[in-house]
Order: sequence, then C-alpha cells, then structure tokens
Amino acid sequence: MTDTTLYGALNSGHSFKVRLLLLMAGVEHRYVAIDIGQPRAERPAEFRAVSPFGEVPVLVEAGRATAQSNALLLHLSRKTGVLGASDEAGWTAITSWLFWEANRIGRSYPNLRWYRRFDGTGDPALVRWFEETAITDLDRMEQELADRPFLLGNATIADLSLAGYLLYGDDVGLDMSRWPAVMAWLERIRALPGYRAPLEIMG
Amino acid sequence: MTDTTLYGALNSGHSFKVRLLLLMAGVEHRYVAIDIGQPRAERPAEFRAVSPFGEVPVLVEAGRATAQSNALLLHLSRKTGVLGASDEAGWTAITSWLFWEANRIGRSYPNLRWYRRFDGTGDPALVRWFEETAITDLDRMEQELADRPFLLGNATIADLSLAGYLLYGDDVGLDMSRWPAVMAWLERIRALPGYRAPLEIMG
Repeated sequence: MTDTTLYGALNSGHSFKVRLLLLMAGVEHRYVAIDIGQPRAERPAEFRAVSPFGEVPVLVEAGRATAQSNALLLHLSRKTGVLGASDEAGWTAITSWLFWEANRIGRSYPNLRWYRRFDGTGDPALVRWFEETAITDLDRMEQELADRPFLLGNATIADLSLAGYLLYGDDVGLDMSRWPAVMAWLERIRALPGYRAPLEIMG
Repeated sequence: MTDTTLYGALNSGHSFKVRLLLLMAGVEHRYVAIDIGQPRAERPAEFRAVSPFGEVPVLVEAGRATAQSNALLLHLSRKTGVLGASDEAGWTAITSWLFWEANRIGRSYPNLRWYRRFDGTGDPALVRWFEETAITDLDRMEQELADRPFLLGNATIADLSLAGYLLYGDDVGLDMSRWPAVMAWLERIRALPGYRAPLEIMG
C-alpha cells in the first residue's frame, strides 16, 4: 500500500514528466489515468474530489493534493535528490528554466499539438500564433543546447520539463530537422537510466 | 555600493513584483529601467550583457544573472524569509500557485493588456482568445479568494505574483466589478507594510 497517487492523462506531457520522475526516482505510487475527453461530472469521484478545476496532473500524498507539473517536479526532486541541484544557486537556475517552460515551450507547443492533432476547429490566426511562438521557443532551445549536453550541464528536472511534450515525437506540422541540437538532446534524455516512453506509462 | 541590480521595465508587471519584494524585504539594490520600446541593439550594454534574449526582469547578484520573475520571487523569499512559507509543504503550495500564474493569469491578462493598451494591430481572434482566458482565470481567482484574505491564508509571494499586472489598475476592456473578491484582495495587498504602487517605483 502506498499513500501517493498521481492522476494524469495519456496525452498530457505535463502528466508524463511527473510520472517519469516518480519512476526514475523509484517513488512507490499508484497511477490513475483520467480520460480528459470525458465530461467532468463523469470522471472518477476520487479525482473530482482532489482536482475541483479538473486539472491534470495532480499528486496526492498523505491526503494533500498538489497541482502544476513543475511544482511537483521541484517538490519530488528536492525530496528524493534525483535530477536536482547541489546548492541553492543550482535550484534557482533549475527553477528559472521551469518558469521559462511554463511561460513558453510548455504553452506554445502543447497548444499547437492540440489543434493540429486533436481539435481541427481552432481559429487559424490562433493556431498560427501558437506555431510562431513554438518556433521562437525551439530556436531559443537550439541556441542553448548547441554547446552542452543538458540545459544545466548535467541532466536535471529542467530537461524533463522542457522535453515533456516533445518526447511524444508527434507530427505537429513542424519540420523538426530545423533543430538538430534539440533532437540530439531528446535522444540523450531517452538514454537516461530508467527512462520510459510516454505511451508505455501513461495509458 | 551594492552588488545587486534589477533590470526591469515601467509597464512590466513581472518586473514590478520583483522590485516590490526587494523593497518590502529591504534588500539593498540598484534598479535600472529598460525601455522595451527601444531596439535591442540600442539598449544599455550592461543589460545586453546579462539578458542575451532581451528578457526583463533580470536580477544580477554578485555577477550571477537570473531571469523569470517567479523564480526570483522564490529565491528572494527563501533568502530573506519575507512573504514565504514556514515549511516545505508551504513552499510547495506557494510554488504551485506561482506556476498557475505562469500558465494562466500571468499570460492571459498581460497579453490582453498589451493589445488593448499598447498595440492595436493584434488579430481579433487572438485578442478574443486572451480575453476569454483572462475571464476564465479571474473567475477561478474569484472562487479561490471568496473565503480567505490571501491565496494561502496569510500574504505570500503568490499574492504578489498573481496580482502583479492587476495592481496597475488599467482599463483593458474588462468590467472588473464582476470580480469583487479579487478587487478586495488587491486592496489588501495595497495595504501591506511597505507596499509601493507600480508607477512610483518602476520608471
């Protein structure tokens, strides 16, 4: 028996990165996949009780529920020491990247993917804006990753966070060969000890 | 002489919240206002050296530059103890709100404000999308703040973060009387010891 439960969804890269860290760090937990296509009222009662606004992922530990994937990565990495920093300056550098993700690639690319793969009704101007911002964000990552293996030298939760949705490897209408340093970095993440692919662990 | 410098901009609520915390916590610092209307190449060399992608705010401490306003709030609050938490569970709760801000109200409202106040060329579908998401986000905040004075009971950096742009009090085309609990909460923030208004400290 474990008192730790993660609620996530198959196609949520934000859920995936948290489940991946739990597995890589060997944290015993129960995983519950939520069908986000289902009307909120029909979702499992245990999920509705801990996520009143229907958000995934949500992690429940000893009865305490926490939302926001990057807050969970920070919390779990600080607790387990896995993929974290060795001092406060290092945590601040990681945290800065996590907020960049939340503002940039963690919004632009997932929204583009949503409209290109799951919802054909998006206004073209909106979809174009997500595409333009995703390209800007990937260009920035390409520059950052050109001269080092991971964002902060060694692999950290910042890498899991920025890579979350990209690791699904979908065709979202972008020519990914424009960003060779990003693609090489994704392969280095896939080679980390304990790595599991999204579709293996999120269903 | 201080070895701490904040680079920010007059109309950047993200810069404002960091400067406000520095002042409320009594951290000695130099503030440099950047004109973000100016072409990047014409901005001060000392700023270009620490912010290669032109981001504000950037905080430089003893030669180390850090971007992302919420990462700076966490770092400064952990260091000074001001508007922080008393245990790790409390820090995780604060961090969860900071990431909600980065994903939601810290994107929707500032973008809406940008197009309504400073740039009339936004595609109507895009501006409408920012308006709809800002309304969704303010509705959520209204529910959260209906039964408590601050997001986590006592005032924390989560309040400064979510309120940043709202404290400018601009007309962005929304009828703010729809969110009375949010408006009352803004007044409670303005009444905190050491509070200073954005236009007083950001120019």
